[in-house]
Amino acid sequence: MIGIKDIYSAAERIRDYAHITPIMSSQRLNSMFGCNMYFKCENFQKVGAFKFRGALNAVSLLSDEERQKGVVTHSSGNHAQALSLAASIFGIPAYIVMPENAPKVKVDAVKEYGGRITFCKPVLVEREATSDKIIKQYGATFIHPYDNYNIIAGQGTCGLELLQQLDSEPDIVMAPVGGGGLLAGTTLSVKSLTKNTKVFGAEPKMADDAYRSFVAGKLMPQTNPQTIADGLLTSVGERNFEILLDKLDEIVICSESSIKEAMKLIFENLKIVVEPSAAVSLACVIDNKDKFKDKTICLVLSGGNIDIANFQWD
Amino acid sequence: MIGIKDIYSAAERIRDYAHITPIMSSQRLNSMFGCNMYFKCENFQKVGAFKFRGALNAVSLLSDEERQKGVVTHSSGNHAQALSLAASIFGIPAYIVMPENAPKVKVDAVKEYGGRITFCKPVLVEREATSDKIIKQYGATFIHPYDNYNIIAGQGTCGLELLQQLDSEPDIVMAPVGGGGLLAGTTLSVKSLTKNTKVFGAEPKMADDAYRSFVAGKLMPQTNPQTIADGLLTSVGERNFEILLDKLDEIVICSESSIKEAMKLIFENLKIVVEPSAAVSLACVIDNKDKFKDKTICLVLSGGNIDIANFQWD
Repeated sequence: MIGIKDIYSAAERIRDYAHITPIMSSQRLNSMFGCNMYFKCENFQKVGAFKFRGALNAVSLLSDEERQKGVVTHSSGNHAQALSLAASIFGIPAYIVMPENAPKVKVDAVKEYGGRITFCKPVLVEREATSDKIIKQYGATFIHPYDNYNIIAGQGTCGLELLQQLDSEPDIVMAPVGGGGLLAGTTLSVKSLTKNTKVFGAEPKMADDAYRSFVAGKLMPQTNPQTIADGLLTSVGERNFEILLDKLDEIVICSESSIKEAMKLIFENLKIVVEPSAAVSLACVIDNKDKFKDKTICLVLSGGNIDIANFQWD
Repeated sequence: MIGIKDIYSAAERIRDYAHITPIMSSQRLNSMFGCNMYFKCENFQKVGAFKFRGALNAVSLLSDEERQKGVVTHSSGNHAQALSLAASIFGIPAYIVMPENAPKVKVDAVKEYGGRITFCKPVLVEREATSDKIIKQYGATFIHPYDNYNIIAGQGTCGLELLQQLDSEPDIVMAPVGGGGLLAGTTLSVKSLTKNTKVFGAEPKMADDAYRSFVAGKLMPQTNPQTIADGLLTSVGERNFEILLDKLDEIVICSESSIKEAMKLIFENLKIVVEPSAAVSLACVIDNKDKFKDKTICLVLSGGNIDIANFQWD
């Protein structure tokens, strides 16, 4: 288990490389929803998503000997890019296992950050088998995208940072939940450092395993998720869920149409680019207006990696 | 004629209301083009564009008696929103003449900032006749969107600000040119305050009246412009052209496809939303790589008002 001390030391570890991301707000959005919203803009983080915080913390915490042998993960998303950049900062290899049908834009991004890609058939057993082979061959350390305490502590630095940036404790901090790295980290930091602030998870109705699990009090795996929030397709991790069950206040869900509406509102009012997963926080405000009325809320915009020219707005 | 003193006093006048907009950069874009680019983000300005600077300065400079009678303009773009907001800050009416076929999103935006809209037939003579009627009826003052020294001085505060934000004088400052309010203001401030910095105008090849005029040394009106950069359709103003002819170094042009490419690069690397007109500066770098190679350039991103869900990327 980890605590706020691990998050403070993660913040020290990543300080020279990660951005302090800005907090933005919009009078128009505030009057539209009758609440006071602060957006923590992790779309401006290195590699375009909060994932860099956790990846750099995890790579930093390896022993010299471990680190020299490199790191490995099977991900085709932001974690793959984040791990590649974190590894390149230490001058060590990042072995990235990707499905052979991964979009070219994601393959190119990982290559650009120096990741060494091994393609495999697009099923989980193949990904795991290929990762295992690389671990055996190079002695590389597997870095799970979320079910890993050092990753969770790294993502927790985002919550630490936003509390330092805000003038006073918000009523609610809300972050999207997929595997639960960001949400578990945010929950740990915000619950440790505030008196009355509630922490909410934001999840698409079409991928609501975290919601169902939290209500049931036990892990219920994701079943055939269909959301456009492609960063939130995965099931919540065990370590993550343990933290959420212990400290999280609530998980709120939203519709697919509200995710697109939230994206549009963010693009047109904050003038910033976010990926669908990031817009899920605001989408949950759209779908649960009464819950947030008159409240001061900090919404984490988790990332901004989107193939903008091919995005289907309706 | 105006000079740097007018721009300094405009900066004082707008200080309490306008945003100091950030400067952003991207290592990836820099290595892609082999130059050092700083983007001045006027998409984050109030009303989403630099236009607020000029409008607020112009309204501020009216006498109390003039101001009480209100201001009028015929514009359906960012100037209309900017003038509406500037007027509302002083609690005076802004009469906005708009063509009856103006897009709903623009009509709504003007209404939201408190502008009083009068619709007319979508031809220039009708717009002018309707404006004249309002001027006679209310005694309101016409505020031209660009061919007005107080507007030019207000837009010049953007150049003043970017020089204060940069660590050293850039080799080049480049801003898009439509009517020439932003470019003339930028030229005045940057040429007055730097030793060796060049100022370039950026213009779409499909609306290149400023380029042709500058080369010919006399005003050549726009003829049937077809660019997607809808903020740059107009001809350069007389007062603007006088300043450009005297002090501007060069006008650079770009293709329509490069405007869309530039937008995509800005969205995906800076993670910010810009309108087509704003991307014209980077599009001119794309189409004139040799001219900018190894240079330090500050590119003004003029605005971020775009109907994102209906934008045709290809």
